[in-house]
Parts: sequence; C-alpha cells; structure tokens
Amino acid sequence: MSHIRSRFSKEATEAVVRYTSSLSFDRRLYPQDIAGSIAHARMLGRQGIISPAEAEALIQGLDSVNSELAAGRFEFRSELEDIHMAIESRLLELIGPVAGKLHTARSRNDQVSLDLRLYVKEAIQQTLSSVRNLQKALVAQAESHRKTAMPGYTHLQPAQPVLLAHHLLAYFEMLERDYARFADTLKRTDVLPLGSGALAGAAYDLDRAAVAAELGFAQVSRNSLDAVADRDFVLEYLAAASICMSHLSRLAEELVLWSSAEFGFVRLDDAYTTGSSIMPQKKNPDVAELGRGKAGRVFGHLLAMLTTLKGLPLAYNRDLQEDKEALFDAVDTLLLSLEVFSGMISTAQFQAAQMKRALVDNGILATDLADYLVKKGLPFREAHGVVGRLVSYAETQSKPLRKLSLAEYQLFSPLFDDDARRLSLAKSLAARSIPGGTAPKQVARQIWRAKKILGIPCSAQSI
Amino acid sequence: MSHIRSRFSKEATEAVVRYTSSLSFDRRLYPQDIAGSIAHARMLGRQGIISPAEAEALIQGLDSVNSELAAGRFEFRSELEDIHMAIESRLLELIGPVAGKLHTARSRNDQVSLDLRLYVKEAIQQTLSSVRNLQKALVAQAESHRKTAMPGYTHLQPAQPVLLAHHLLAYFEMLERDYARFADTLKRTDVLPLGSGALAGAAYDLDRAAVAAELGFAQVSRNSLDAVADRDFVLEYLAAASICMSHLSRLAEELVLWSSAEFGFVRLDDAYTTGSSIMPQKKNPDVAELGRGKAGRVFGHLLAMLTTLKGLPLAYNRDLQEDKEALFDAVDTLLLSLEVFSGMISTAQFQAAQMKRALVDNGILATDLADYLVKKGLPFREAHGVVGRLVSYAETQSKPLRKLSLAEYQLFSPLFDDDARRLSLAKSLAARSIPGGTAPKQVARQIWRAKKILGIPCSAQSI
Amino acid sequence: MSHIRSRFSKEATEAVVRYTSSLSFDRRLYPQDIAGSIAHARMLGRQGIISPAEAEALIQGLDSVNSELAAGRFEFRSELEDIHMAIESRLLELIGPVAGKLHTARSRNDQVSLDLRLYVKEAIQQTLSSVRNLQKALVAQAESHRKTAMPGYTHLQPAQPVLLAHHLLAYFEMLERDYARFADTLKRTDVLPLGSGALAGAAYDLDRAAVAAELGFAQVSRNSLDAVADRDFVLEYLAAASICMSHLSRLAEELVLWSSAEFGFVRLDDAYTTGSSIMPQKKNPDVAELGRGKAGRVFGHLLAMLTTLKGLPLAYNRDLQEDKEALFDAVDTLLLSLEVFSGMISTAQFQAAQMKRALVDNGILATDLADYLVKKGLPFREAHGVVGRLVSYAETQSKPLRKLSLAEYQLFSPLFDDDARRLSLAKSLAARSIPGGTAPKQVARQIWRAKKILGIPCSAQSI
Amino acid sequence: MSHIRSRFSKEATEAVVRYTSSLSFDRRLYPQDIAGSIAHARMLGRQGIISPAEAEALIQGLDSVNSELAAGRFEFRSELEDIHMAIESRLLELIGPVAGKLHTARSRNDQVSLDLRLYVKEAIQQTLSSVRNLQKALVAQAESHRKTAMPGYTHLQPAQPVLLAHHLLAYFEMLERDYARFADTLKRTDVLPLGSGALAGAAYDLDRAAVAAELGFAQVSRNSLDAVADRDFVLEYLAAASICMSHLSRLAEELVLWSSAEFGFVRLDDAYTTGSSIMPQKKNPDVAELGRGKAGRVFGHLLAMLTTLKGLPLAYNRDLQEDKEALFDAVDTLLLSLEVFSGMISTAQFQAAQMKRALVDNGILATDLADYLVKKGLPFREAHGVVGRLVSYAETQSKPLRKLSLAEYQLFSPLFDDDARRLSLAKSLAARSIPGGTAPKQVARQIWRAKKILGIPCSAQSI
Repeated sequence: MSHIRSRFSKEATEAVVRYTSSLSFDRRLYPQDIAGSIAHARMLGRQGIISPAEAEALIQGLDSVNSELAAGRFEFRSELEDIHMAIESRLLELIGPVAGKLHTARSRNDQVSLDLRLYVKEAIQQTLSSVRNLQKALVAQAESHRKTAMPGYTHLQPAQPVLLAHHLLAYFEMLERDYARFADTLKRTDVLPLGSGALAGAAYDLDRAAVAAELGFAQVSRNSLDAVADRDFVLEYLAAASICMSHLSRLAEELVLWSSAEFGFVRLDDAYTTGSSIMPQKKNPDVAELGRGKAGRVFGHLLAMLTTLKGLPLAYNRDLQEDKEALFDAVDTLLLSLEVFSGMISTAQFQAAQMKRALVDNGILATDLADYLVKKGLPFREAHGVVGRLVSYAETQSKPLRKLSLAEYQLFSPLFDDDARRLSLAKSLAARSIPGGTAPKQVARQIWRAKKILGIPCSAQSI
Repeated sequence: MSHIRSRFSKEATEAVVRYTSSLSFDRRLYPQDIAGSIAHARMLGRQGIISPAEAEALIQGLDSVNSELAAGRFEFRSELEDIHMAIESRLLELIGPVAGKLHTARSRNDQVSLDLRLYVKEAIQQTLSSVRNLQKALVAQAESHRKTAMPGYTHLQPAQPVLLAHHLLAYFEMLERDYARFADTLKRTDVLPLGSGALAGAAYDLDRAAVAAELGFAQVSRNSLDAVADRDFVLEYLAAASICMSHLSRLAEELVLWSSAEFGFVRLDDAYTTGSSIMPQKKNPDVAELGRGKAGRVFGHLLAMLTTLKGLPLAYNRDLQEDKEALFDAVDTLLLSLEVFSGMISTAQFQAAQMKRALVDNGILATDLADYLVKKGLPFREAHGVVGRLVSYAETQSKPLRKLSLAEYQLFSPLFDDDARRLSLAKSLAARSIPGGTAPKQVARQIWRAKKILGIPCSAQSI
Repeated sequence: MSHIRSRFSKEATEAVVRYTSSLSFDRRLYPQDIAGSIAHARMLGRQGIISPAEAEALIQGLDSVNSELAAGRFEFRSELEDIHMAIESRLLELIGPVAGKLHTARSRNDQVSLDLRLYVKEAIQQTLSSVRNLQKALVAQAESHRKTAMPGYTHLQPAQPVLLAHHLLAYFEMLERDYARFADTLKRTDVLPLGSGALAGAAYDLDRAAVAAELGFAQVSRNSLDAVADRDFVLEYLAAASICMSHLSRLAEELVLWSSAEFGFVRLDDAYTTGSSIMPQKKNPDVAELGRGKAGRVFGHLLAMLTTLKGLPLAYNRDLQEDKEALFDAVDTLLLSLEVFSGMISTAQFQAAQMKRALVDNGILATDLADYLVKKGLPFREAHGVVGRLVSYAETQSKPLRKLSLAEYQLFSPLFDDDARRLSLAKSLAARSIPGGTAPKQVARQIWRAKKILGIPCSAQSI
Repeated sequence: MSHIRSRFSKEATEAVVRYTSSLSFDRRLYPQDIAGSIAHARMLGRQGIISPAEAEALIQGLDSVNSELAAGRFEFRSELEDIHMAIESRLLELIGPVAGKLHTARSRNDQVSLDLRLYVKEAIQQTLSSVRNLQKALVAQAESHRKTAMPGYTHLQPAQPVLLAHHLLAYFEMLERDYARFADTLKRTDVLPLGSGALAGAAYDLDRAAVAAELGFAQVSRNSLDAVADRDFVLEYLAAASICMSHLSRLAEELVLWSSAEFGFVRLDDAYTTGSSIMPQKKNPDVAELGRGKAGRVFGHLLAMLTTLKGLPLAYNRDLQEDKEALFDAVDTLLLSLEVFSGMISTAQFQAAQMKRALVDNGILATDLADYLVKKGLPFREAHGVVGRLVSYAETQSKPLRKLSLAEYQLFSPLFDDDARRLSLAKSLAARSIPGGTAPKQVARQIWRAKKILGIPCSAQSI
C-alpha cells in the first residue's frame, strides 16, 4: 500500500489502478522529474531546510536512479501511480528513509507542473529547429526553381502564372508565423511553478529564484493557486501545433494533387512513397497523405484539452492528468511530420515541363488582357466584362486566345491593338513586381531575405 | 525490401518507416485479421480459385501464426508496415510460397476494413454489456434509496424535493439511450467489405455470402468503392461514445460535488478515491474526476476522425490509417470508464441524513405553496408572484417559511389558510405522481421497469 | 420588470439582457411553442384543472397570437427573455389574467424541451426528404452513365477502371447510411417531455398520453429529471449531420478536382459556379467549395454542444440555452447543402471523353495483368512482383504496356502469352462481377435496387 | 446579372444565392471595406494609375456610401453577393462609370483579407481593454478581501487555508496571460495584404507602404499567394479566445458552486441572476452558467475554422468565406462575456462569515501539522503518514483535531508537543510567505503589482 493511502482501509481495484495510473505515459518525464528534484534538493540543503549531507545523499541517489532509467535498468512497478512515485520509491530503496525528505516543501501538484513545463520548453526548442529545417528545404527548392513558371490557382482553377519559387515561399511564410507563435508560447511556458506547494505556497523559506536559475527558467510563478491549476502552456502549444499542422495539411494536399497523373507537377522520391499490395503500378504519396490526415489528430488533442479544462474549479483537479498523452502525441506527431516533410520536399523532383504545359490554358493571361485595357483607359470593371466575353467567344470557337484574329478581338473592344495578342507569360510574371508579387526580381529578394533569416550565406549576385 | 516496393529504387528512411508504419498499434487486430484470412482461404478453396490442399495449408499456417501471436512468441519486425504484412510474412516463413496465394482476390484496402469492422462489432458488444452493468449498479442503489429524499437542483440551487432513487434513475435513462445508440451503430457496422478488392471489386468468382456467414456478418457491402472508403462505422461509434462520456461526465461532476465537505451527500469507497502527497487528511474523488476529464479525450477523437475524413476523394487514401489509434483509445477509455463507474456507484455510501439536512432550505416547498394558491383559483402566474414576495419577506425576517405566522402569510394573499403552513416534504413528493414524476409510487414503477429491462427478477411486492 | 423577477430588487443591465436573452433566435420556435401550449391548455381543461371556458379562452388567444406571428405583426420586445415569455405576455394583453393559467403544471424547463423536440422532429423529416432528393440526382446521373468508364483512384493515383455510375453510387450508399442514422435519431427524439415540470414532475393530474397523442409523440418521457436535462437528441442530430456533411465534403472535393483544367471530368452548370472579380476567364466551383468548407461549421457545432454539456450536474442549467443556435445553424446548413448539391449534381455534365483519355494510363490494367498470371498458377504475391517490374521497365522505355513486345513481356515471366497484351478496359470492368463490383451487370443491379428504394419505377429491361 | 458573371449563360438559383451570399453577415465589415477602398483610391491617384480627379470622385462617393450605411439608409439587395459588391454597386449609382476604376489593381481576394485584418485588429484592441476591465474588477474585490480567509480546494476537497484575495488573483494571472496572447496575435495580424491581387501580386506600380501607413499597418505582406490564402490571424484569435473562455468557464463554475446553498460563499447581485418561471424562491446564477456554457461555442468556432482550412490547396478557395461568422460570433461572445463578468464580479458580495465557517473542517491544517513534525526532524513522507493516521482517528472519534488530547496526539508520534494543538489559521496563512504564496504579505505585494500593471494608483501603505 502506497504511503499516501495510509489513512485508507482499502486498496484500489486493478481496474482503478489502470484508470488512475499515469506511469505508462508519464515515465517519459523522468529526466525532467529528476532534474527538478535535484535542483529542489540542492536548494533545500542550501537553505538549511535539510542538512547538506541529506541534500548530498538525495542528489547522489537521484543520479543513480537517473542512470538506471537512462540505461533501461529501472523496473516500473504497475502499482505505482506515476513517475514521481516510481522515482521516489526507488530512491527510498537506494538511500533509505532520508529519501522521505525530498518531498519537503513540495507537492506533486507543483512538481508535475514543473516537469511538464520543462518538457514543453524542450519540445518548443525542437519544434523551432524542425520548422527551420523544413523552411530550408523549401528555400533550397525555391532557389532551384527561380525561373520555373506554373499556373497559380484559385478555386483550383488556373488563374494567373506564378513562379514555382513563389509558391514554395508561401509555405516559408506560413512556417515563419509558426516559428513566431512557438517562440511566443515559450515566453509563457518559461515560468517556474515549484514552490507553489499543493496550492497555497510552500510553508518553508525556499529560494525560488535559485531553483529557477538552476533549471533555466526566466521567471517564477506569481500565484500559487494559478500555478498548480494552469495548463495554458499546454493549450498554447497545442494551438500552435494545430495551426502548423493545418499548414502541413495544405502542403500535403498540393503534393498529393501534384503527384496525380493529371497534374504531374512533382515526382516524389521513392523513399516518400509506397506501393500497393494489389496494384503493381502504383506509387502512392502515402507520406503526404498521412501528413494531411494527422492534422485531425492534433486538432483533436487541442479540443480534448480545452474540453477537459472547461469548467474546472481551482486549484488542482485530477482531470488535469489528461494533459499528458494528448500533448506527447501532438509533439511527436508534429516533430515527425516536420522531419519527413523536410526530406520529402528536399528530394522532390518538380516537373517544370509539365507545369509549362499546364500554362497554355486559354485564360491564364486574361487578367493581363483586362489590365491592358485598363491601361488604355477603360475602367477595370468594364475591361473585366470585355475580356470575359472574349474568353467566352474563344471557347465557343475552340481556339486559344492568341489564335484569334485582331478583328475578332476588336469585336469586343476597339481599344485592342495588335500588341494585345503578344502578351506573354514572361511579361505577365515580370509585371507583378510590387513587394510580395511573383515577378522574378521580387522572388529573388524574398529568397535572399529567407536565407538571411535561416542563416544561409547569400552571394551578392543571387539577388 | 518488402515485395510491394519491388518497383522502387529506394528504401524509405527510418523516419518515414516510423511515420507510415501502423504495426505498433494495429497489431491488436491480429485475431480479426487471422479470422478474416482463414474465412477467405477456405472460400477460395471451396470456389476452386486455389486448390483444397493450398487452402488447407494456408489455414493451418494461419492457425500456427495465431498461436504464436496469442502466446506472445511472435516477433514483430519494425520494418514491416502493418499487421497484415507481419502475418503474411511469417506465413511465408512457415509454409513457403503458397502463402502468396492468400492475397488472391483481396487487397489490403478491403482487408483492413474487414478487420476494423470485426473489431468494432466486438467493441460494441462489450460496450453494451458494460452499459448494462452500470445500469445495474444504479438501479441497485436506487432500490436501496427508494425513500431517501434529497433536494432536486436546477442551476445548482435547491429547487424541489426529489427522491435519490429518482435522481439515480435519470442516469439509467441516459444509459438506456446510449444502449440503443450502440445497438443502432451495430446495424451499420455489420456489413462484410471483403470482396471489394482495392476499390473496384475482386475479379474472381468469390462467394461473399459464405464468407459473411462464416464471420457472422448480416450483410455484404453493395458498392466496392464505398466499402474501402467508408469509415462511418468508426465515426458512429465515436459519436455514441462521446455522448455516453458526456453522461458519465455529468455523473462524475455530481459525485465530485456530493463528495465535497459542503454537500456531503456521498462517501465514495476508499477503493475509488486517492490520497494527497502533501495533505494527509484528503480523500480525493480521483476516479470521478478522471472520468469527467476523459470526456474531452473521447470528444477529441471524434473530432480528429471527422477532420481526417473531411474532403477526402474516393476511394482509399492513406489518411484513413489514422482511424485506428483514435478508435482504440476511445473504446478502451469508454469500457474502462464504465467499469470503474459501476464499481464506484455500487460501493458508494449515499448520506441520507445529510441530504435531509439540506432539505430544510427555505424555498424548497415554494412551488408547492404556489400550487396551493392555484388550487384555490389564483392563476399560476399571480400565485408565483405572491409566493416570490412571501419568500423574500421570510428572508428579510431570517425565518424559515414554516415559522411565519398565518397573519404574515395573509399579508401576501387572503387565500392562505392554516393548511398552507403544513405543507410537507412527503406531501410534496407524493403530489408528483404522474408518469415520470418523483412520487414514490412512480419511482417504484420505474425501478420495476428498469429491472425488467435488465433481466433482474422483481418480486411482486416491490411495486 | 418581468413577473418572474418579482422577488428581485434590481433589473438586469442592458448587457446582461443581451447576454441572457434568447428571443433573437428562439423566436423561430413559435409554431412549436404555440402548438404545445394549445395541447397543454386543452388537456388542462379536459382534466378539470382549469375550466372548459378558461381552456377555450387560452386556445383562442393562442390562435390569435399565432396569426400575429405568422403574419409578421407580432412586436418582439427585447426586454422579454425568450419566445415563451413573449407569447405569454402577448396572451395576457389579449385575454387578460386568465392567461396566467396557461403555466399551470408546466415549467419553462419542460416547455423548452418540448419545443425543441418538436423542432428536431420536423428537421429530421425534412432532412430525410432532402437526402432522398440528392440520392435521386445521383441515381439519375448514374443511369445516364451506365457505360461511362473512368479511372478509379486510390491515393489519387489511377488504380483500376471503374464505371462512373459505380462511383456515383458510392455516394448513394453513404447517403443511405445517413438516412438510416437520421431515422434512428428520430426514435429517440420522439418522446414527450411535457409534464416533467421544472424537474420533479408536475403536481397535477395531467393526462400526458393525451398530449403526446395530440402532438404526435410516440412515447412520454420516463424520468422528469432526465427529461429537462437531456439534450441527447440535439447531440445525435448534430452527430448525424456531421457525418452527412463529411460525405458532402468528399463529393465536393471530387467536384472541385474534376472541374479543374487538369482533370476536366465535369463541367458544372453555370448556376452552380461563379466568376472572379479580377480574372474574367474563371468559372469557379464555389458551391462545391462552400459545401466542403461548411463541414467544419457543422463539426464545430457538434463539438460546441458536447463541450457545453460536459460536466453539467442535474437537472436544468442555463448552459443548456446554448443548444439552439448551434442546432438551428446545423439544420439550415445541412438542408441547404443537400438542396444545392442535388441541383449541382442534376445539372452537372460529366465528360466521358475526358475520362476515357485519362484511362490510357500505363498502369490502369496492371492488376488485371497480375490476375492473368495468377490464373496461370503464379501465387499472387509473385505475380504482383513480376508486373511491378514490367511496369517499371515500360516506364524507363517511355512506352505504354500494350506497345511492349511479347518478348519484352517474357523477359519478366515465361507465363505471358500473347493474350496478355490484349487485356482491355471492357474485359477489366466485366471481370469485377461479384456483388458490389464495378461490372456493368452489377452496377445495373445496384441502380435497380436504388430506384426501388427511392420509389422510382424501373422498367424490366433496365437490369 | 452581376458583371462578374458576364461570361455566364445562366443565373444562380435562389438557393445558390442564399448558399453563396455573404451579405447577411459581412455587411458589418463595411467600415473596414470603405476605409480600405479610400486608402486604395487615394494611392491610385497619387501613383498616377488613375487621375487625381478620379481619385477624388471615388473618395467622395465612398464617403457618401459610408454615410448611408452609418445612417441605416443603405438598401441591401439580396442578389448582391457580398458587402464589397454592394458598396461598389451603390458607388456606381452615385458617381457613374468611374466607380469601375476602384477595382484597378485589386481583387476581392486581397480586399476581403484586408477588411478582415482591420476588423481583427480592432477586435483585439477591444478585447485587450475588456480583459483589463475584468482584471480591475478582480483586483478591487481582492483588495476588499485582503484578510478574508477561505478554504483552498484541490479535487473540490478543502485542502489548506488561503486568502480570498489570493484566489481572486489567480484569475488576474490567467487574464494576464490572455492579454499577452492577444497582444502577440496582434503582431501577426498587423500586416497589410492589399496589393497581393487575386494571388500573384498586382501588375501596377502601387505604393503599398503608403497604404499601410494610412491604414495603420506595421508591415506589408511578403508573399502574395500566402497573403490571400492565409487565415492564421483568425485561427490565432479564436485560439486565444478559446483559452480565455476556458478561464471564464472556470470562474463561472466557481461562482455557480459558491452561489449554491451548500457553499454560500457569494451572493451575486440581482442584476446578474434570474428567477424561475415555476419556483418563486429561486435566484439562479444564469449569467455565470451561460458564461460557462458559451466556452463550448467558442471552442466549436476554433475547431470549425481549423477543419475548414485543413487540406486546402493554394491560393484562395471559396471555403475561406466560412471564416467570418465563426469569428464574428467568437468576438461578440468573448467581449460580452468579459463585460458581464466584470459587472458580476464588481457587484458580487463575497460572504466572509460563511467562508470562515467552512474553515473549521477537520483537516484543513493537516499539512501544517505534517510540516510541524518535519520541522522536528521527521522526513516529510513519515510525517505525512503520522498525520494521516491521526486524522483518521479523529474521524472515528467524531472530534475535530483540536479537541483531541495531547495524549491522543502522542499515540501517533512522540514528537507532538502541546503547541501542535495550537496551530491556527492565521499562522498557517502567514507561513506561506514565499513569492506566489498565500501569506497576507505576499498577497499585498501581488495586489500592488497588479494595480501597477492596471495603472491604478497605489498608496504606499497598501503594501
């Protein structure tokens, strides 16, 4: 019987143990738990709350437990409720009753919050770095495709020509916002809760600032009730991860589309596709599909956590134990998704020739034609109407626009001159040369800026 | 290199294998997978698609694999993508190239759908039985508390007296709807997809009806594209599970509330509570809290699956692999929740004395007082106003209603007579004797009906 | 000051009125509210709880209010909390104090539940009928395209040939399940809550069965606490609507894809597309896109309602007022989506020629080729490998399979004979002739069955 | 027929118009739309893209339209698709064909993104201010209750004494994080998209920086494809709003609990409660209940938007139109919730006497007793066990701890001395005097700090 049940006359049933135990999943918090305990023990010793020898014994014992865990030699007994109890109970075996002093001035409520904050801080650092890696893969491909034109789509209809590099950089921008969001989340995660006790603050003369410094926290929490009840940092990570997964799902959708026989805009590397158990010819973009599908999973975790927190009174409630599995799975899913997407993008072979073929669409330069009329003085709305009718006419004639005669153009507006029929892809691209536009000059600038952000050296001429 | 990658020049990276492999979680489908394969092999043999000897070899081989898996002697190699491949690859080792004939006229697309449908069918059966168990626990407590009165609440304010049995039976009704919903879900799950091939139907003369009969399916699927793309049965289980968890979360909330020092309406058995690591006096309703919190988890899985399915074109897409973990976790969570709640209710000690104390509230009989005036001819709305003012007066006098004098009553309406001051709890309860009401007679009937549904013998006198 | 605040010394602030009032949205429940009140008044009269004359006065008054509301002559005063109060207050103006007798033996708690159940019952009827309409549109197109072949896709890669009719009927099947789900939901909605009072049951001798009969309910509720606290019927409608919207989102995705220049499989009617404000050539599948996007909206409402119900103690809590807007919007969204999708499908022009062009893909018959080898005795897994290598070879030669020589085929297996090179689309389709398969014969049967379900006459020859 | 359908042969059906039109909800964006158009027109004139006279005509016309809209004199014709078309079409009536020049170098895709960003920027400003108001209300109550002690709860069980002020300040901290999150969201919203055109950038020499300056944007967007496809700022607002609503739902839950007869810790002002239609004595905390319930609504909107964005290819898709209703409702819900909660907190009467009564609980000082033993040298874990057994003993004796004799104490540990029986509430509170603890000194500091953040003058002595 665990000591915290000393007052109880009955053991929990096996089903209850399975229901309440978090050991099967919170064991991955052991490095954080031990680091926190060592900092706590050291501080207790320094403050004279326990003797220096006791502190030393605790620290050495914790180091031993850590080694056992790291080496996979630690035996997890299922009757222990959680990783904190598992470690403490092993510590007792190793160093005897002095182990009982570790819990002085500490509660599992502030301890678990500490462990989780340390974990989220590390998860954010890894996420930031993984986001950067995917950005690098995108920028490298963008740089290789500075001159590759493709149809830009709205409503999945060809709309206007764009550069493939410009298209890829749109994802760079999304990830740039993701990066900033995770960095902002870090600020609110970077707060030491230890010292808050069960809910009211520890009744000992602790040096919270020293513990914060040792563990690398920027601040200490300011309200003990809030500190043990707060899981905003989990919600905020999940929200940022959900938004990031929504970006990956969009990229994934495009890779699936572009891999189709009909589009043919990309050939994914064999390492990122799989075959079919029945259809020998298939080369399926499974990695992209899974990335798209896994967005749902992360959204679900966000929602689960929001729902769990809804309507909970202060301070700690056991419902909060539900925070970990959702968070761990979201972190694992996001990090692995970013990693495989980086590899998938790096090794993708974009098919410039196929993109070019798709650009012969009748209407892709229609906006340019309308702009042509505008520049001759027609209000945009009227120009739009003229070109709309012209496109319609070309369709009924089954001819591309450039095959219509000038006379046919002039059926729709006397403002058309022969140069209207000489609009080109290159001119269309070059014309969109305002900041953010798809003109090669602008895209080059964006690549340069992206490389600067990523710390990639840029030769002067690359602009 | 797996044979389904025969056409590919490159292996997947380790990260991709981790990303795409489902073996770590779909291994629990092995009984379903093997049962399906055996039925398929037997039918192939009977139809002459493979020879009887080949069929026999496959079946015996599958039995051996099954034994290895059941005994935990099966080695899961992580480079295998999923449980289907793991089993087939072991079969090849055991029985040689004839193993390759098992996949005749079958695709993983219809195979995985089959496995999952078999799994959900079993999950529903277990869920139905677990729902019944919790209903039994509720009815048993209701029967023990047929005369225990308590305040009924709306807005968490004492409203009118009710019987505790009546309150507990409200949960019986919720679970009765859950039961019906799961039973309805079963109808749409009970459909054999095998024979649908990858998407277009198998090009062999299969006897689908025979396979359905052997595996216990009521119907065969009617459209092969739909059959491999459909996960409605997963969504429907998740939706029913979410609604059921919403009921458990409400029950949990009440148990938490009632366990509080302030209410004191229930003492949960020690086996369903836990202690505090820091506060020795605490007896926390952790099981109830976790049940409340886990509602979020199941809602999250429902949403994850809906999101994953959103916007997927036909037929099979790899996104569908995301169906399993959410489903498995929802099933495990719901079944274990129902089990621990059954035990928690069975062993709970409801505190009739404390409930009675809570009934002395000033206003609990106010509705009865208004009804009293109505029966003397006052329109309800006016009666409501009169009693509202009387209650307000009593509060300013800091007196309970029954301590006011008749003269004081009559300050508010001349219709009050001395019997107005003799309204009692028992009369209030007995007055609500329409079907569904809280009158003891009605509650006894509901207990009787509930026991009939649950197959519990009822003695005649218990009505 | 409303009479239900008679005991209160202060009015709510304007912000509180806006926060708590439901009149802006629950006014659409007026027909249900009045029908319920009339049935209640009639029964009160018949039971002698009020006099026949009073009952008559109430009924006539309610009829007048109904006429005013139907004619748009009713003045909604914003200080009234909800539609129930608005109607009752107008009734008081029209018929004087007897109006106050309408609320005898009734609470807003059972009244609002009644109104909402009546509303959901009607919504389900309309949904069932709208589902049928979309099914009809799909079946009509399927019948027109009984011979149109197209590539069937998995992973958005061409997989095997299928009939367009078969593809369209996959959606018929999805909707068939939707239909059954809504019908099942109806069973649990079809329960009269009136008589449950505020929570404990009415303290009057009501004839609940008569009210149920008059209002068309199949059952009366069996537990008054449950009856006022239960919103399962709302959750269940929202869950069924979410699943149905997931189907529409899949159909929408395909229509968007198929409308693209790259696929070109469908031309949507002008009435279901819109133009661009800047690109005159565009014809955008906006209706399909909105249908796809609106799935999120309905999922959101389901989740909102689940979250709102999570952890609520019995019986009525004001949180429940949040049920209406989500429900109303989900009903409106689903019904309108079904309606516009029916029109969009009916008027769509599927492009058989373009689909045929897409079928020349190299690998579309690869499975047939593997099946060919299987029928010559090769285990499927080996046949799969042989064909995989053959397809790979053809790709490196940039030749379609049928242009390879027999000698080239035999490089990969001596089992190939000249007939291997004569596999055809028609043979491939016809081969899949098991129930649910894409063979024309099977598809014809499915059309026949669908028409029977839909009540469309089928000529004998159409099979 | 709208001019953007010039090429189309058929009008949309009435159902399609209802399905696709956003005019019923996006009309509230008119101030943003007109402000954006004026800035655009002015810049077009300055850049010589249109003439100064044309620019002037457009600006004056837009001013007139604005006045009409502000005065409610604008007629919304339902056949117009959206607010942009409604305004432009009225402009055409007012100033003739020159109106058509307004759309030069602009698309609805960048226009609607601009309008929405302007709206979100304003919404954030209002949210920040409303958060501050609620914080002020909390701090004012905290200051009035600097000495009010109450039980602190974990698992809804009395755990340790805390100050009410400390409890209230926990919500100050939550809101402080909300404030920071909204401020961070503002950074990523504060980006001008105009100039991005439909997707590729405008083909005119625009001065984007000037437009940004006029409209008050800190940056211009850097990638036109991203600019028209991005709704991260909507997601981020919804995520921050969801987290904030989770905080309000927790506060609401406590107010509901504390308003109950059993707790009795607060009396909400009449203006924030409502009566019952049937039970005259009731005073229901409806505002708090609605606040709790509305959390679900905002979570639902977040999820709806995430789902809608999932898997959308670049650039603009009509699915994005679904962004507005969810966002508008979330903003309205959050702002009104913050407002009514501010009033509800300001006017709440916390019941110090009732809180004090709740503090006599047997175990509330048990942690202090354990700490007492620790300070005498016992390891915490053993002390915890001793006190656990002592509490259990007291319960079996039905005595409060302080009524046990010293001899009884010493049955459990010889370390107990008479002072153990003199532990007091005041000492317990004062002992928790580390930063963030509940000691009066610490709480005073936190109030002081909060007032500084809120800009409230603090007298020196108040610390």
